[in-house]
Amino acid sequence: MRVIVDAFGGDNAPLEIIRGASLAVAEYGIKVILTGKRDEILQTAEKNGVNLDGMTIINAPGVISMEDEPRSILREHKESSMAEGLRSLAAGEGDAFVSAGSTGALIVGATFYVKRIKGISRAALAPLMPGINGPFMLIDSGANVDVRPEMLLQFAHMGSLYMSNVMGDGRPVKVGLVNVGTEDTKGGDLQHQAFMLLKESGLNFVGNIEARDIPFNVADVVVTDGFTGNVILKLTEGVASALMKNIKDIFMTNAITKAAALMVKPYLGDLKKKMDATEYGGAPLLGISKPVIKAHGNSNANAIKHAIRVAADFAQKGVIEKISAAVKPEESLSD
Amino acid sequence: MRVIVDAFGGDNAPLEIIRGASLAVAEYGIKVILTGKRDEILQTAEKNGVNLDGMTIINAPGVISMEDEPRSILREHKESSMAEGLRSLAAGEGDAFVSAGSTGALIVGATFYVKRIKGISRAALAPLMPGINGPFMLIDSGANVDVRPEMLLQFAHMGSLYMSNVMGDGRPVKVGLVNVGTEDTKGGDLQHQAFMLLKESGLNFVGNIEARDIPFNVADVVVTDGFTGNVILKLTEGVASALMKNIKDIFMTNAITKAAALMVKPYLGDLKKKMDATEYGGAPLLGISKPVIKAHGNSNANAIKHAIRVAADFAQKGVIEKISAAVKPEESLSD
Repeated sequence: MRVIVDAFGGDNAPLEIIRGASLAVAEYGIKVILTGKRDEILQTAEKNGVNLDGMTIINAPGVISMEDEPRSILREHKESSMAEGLRSLAAGEGDAFVSAGSTGALIVGATFYVKRIKGISRAALAPLMPGINGPFMLIDSGANVDVRPEMLLQFAHMGSLYMSNVMGDGRPVKVGLVNVGTEDTKGGDLQHQAFMLLKESGLNFVGNIEARDIPFNVADVVVTDGFTGNVILKLTEGVASALMKNIKDIFMTNAITKAAALMVKPYLGDLKKKMDATEYGGAPLLGISKPVIKAHGNSNANAIKHAIRVAADFAQKGVIEKISAAVKPEESLSD
Repeated sequence: MRVIVDAFGGDNAPLEIIRGASLAVAEYGIKVILTGKRDEILQTAEKNGVNLDGMTIINAPGVISMEDEPRSILREHKESSMAEGLRSLAAGEGDAFVSAGSTGALIVGATFYVKRIKGISRAALAPLMPGINGPFMLIDSGANVDVRPEMLLQFAHMGSLYMSNVMGDGRPVKVGLVNVGTEDTKGGDLQHQAFMLLKESGLNFVGNIEARDIPFNVADVVVTDGFTGNVILKLTEGVASALMKNIKDIFMTNAITKAAALMVKPYLGDLKKKMDATEYGGAPLLGISKPVIKAHGNSNANAIKHAIRVAADFAQKGVIEKISAAVKPEESLSD
């Protein structure tokens, strides 16, 4: 497997990106193609002792930042490392693409340069999130603020095929629709219509799910519009972070609590790791005709390593071919 | 202050309700009017040694349950303790009303029997939630799945007046609009239009807020539609509950971690109390022309006591008069 990696995407580029790429080459034997300023990559690697064996570089003079308008990837930033990586993916120079750069630019760029799967009306960003019994997928987490019921059905199919094949053993996974109650008739028009479509979809649809039950793995694929999904993604992070701060404060209260902290420290580390979504390797951008993975903007080398591994898995398991086959002509949507 | 209390609302009615009422009479000197089956109230009180001094009872033969269709409060359940309480409130037999019964029925019943404040187009359910530095208000948490931008503006005004007067010292509080990013142009049409209205509202509007920052008290009044609000309310509960379960499991790992647990136990109890929204006394139903408080369905005596105290405060601080004054004729909406 050959994974193209945007060496200039994210807060810690390029050093942590090339470090992560180097780890992925060494640990998984994946071939990595870096995109970005060749000279700076070589200098950074040399200065920091990063081994670039097993990697090639496609030179790209520009960088698109988080502050840049997403659509600028098609215009003033079309020479950026991200744009170059996407075009290389489209041209078949690699099997998958990873970037920790601007989410908006990645969605626009992937849609324009790599194209959507035929019949899929919207690409969806689908991060894996920590549940009490393991990861679940949230689809969509913010790429599509306004959606139609048929799009939620497509999100469900795509998420289900990904989770079943990349994260599972091929068996069907549970699909749930985020709603304000579990009864069939809850929610607004979007939920009513999506519910009916999902019920008749042939998927393992567990029905409407309440947000309270999401962290308890009530579904493996949590289907929702991008506005609600974005709130779910960020609130999970916020609540966990606020609670961990409270607990840290408790442990710092006095000598006794500080001693208690030392006694549970290794286990709290495990919990932190369990809660840390970077272990799951970033979010697939589902609906694009080739595997694209969005790594977290603040990814370190370890997160990039995992993202590259997941990108290779995504390509190897043939998920996109399975999505193509699942989108029957009569289900396809026009834009 | 005279607070009418639905003695047959919620999972623990009537015993915990009348116990809570008894505590409120004793601690705050509030007069309580119970609604419900008179004989059963008297028997339950006697059997459990609950002192009914300072209370009167308005007999109501029926009960509306969580499973009943909300609109049935206007028809087959119009003799229920909740309906009777709302009509008594409308008739001026008390200054505020508390129920731990069906949220849907309470919204329908309050709107029909007590009526909305003139010019207010929707009643909103506005629970107080635990933030890292104290409670904040979420408005709306589920009464209105579909809203218009002007309704969000009214929610903001109502929430602001409540938080400023009942929970604060009268000074302006921070109002934020839930969105997928902090930039002014984020979100869909609803958010764009609401943003513009809030910007020109004269409120202390801090702009768009991300869900990640909500638990950190980025706003005192968190404004959103009822669908998103319901997700925020329930996901906060779910994530906190999942994380506390993980931490509990850590403490149960072995003899050393069990010892550590004992060392921090009192502080964890404080944290649990801090996270426990029942201490804040339930959710005001804002926009109704008299004070109505929805207590949590599983309220115990202590939660009911707090809800009665908050209901009395709500009435005493003149919040409804202030909302009426704030709704200028040109801002009022037709249904």
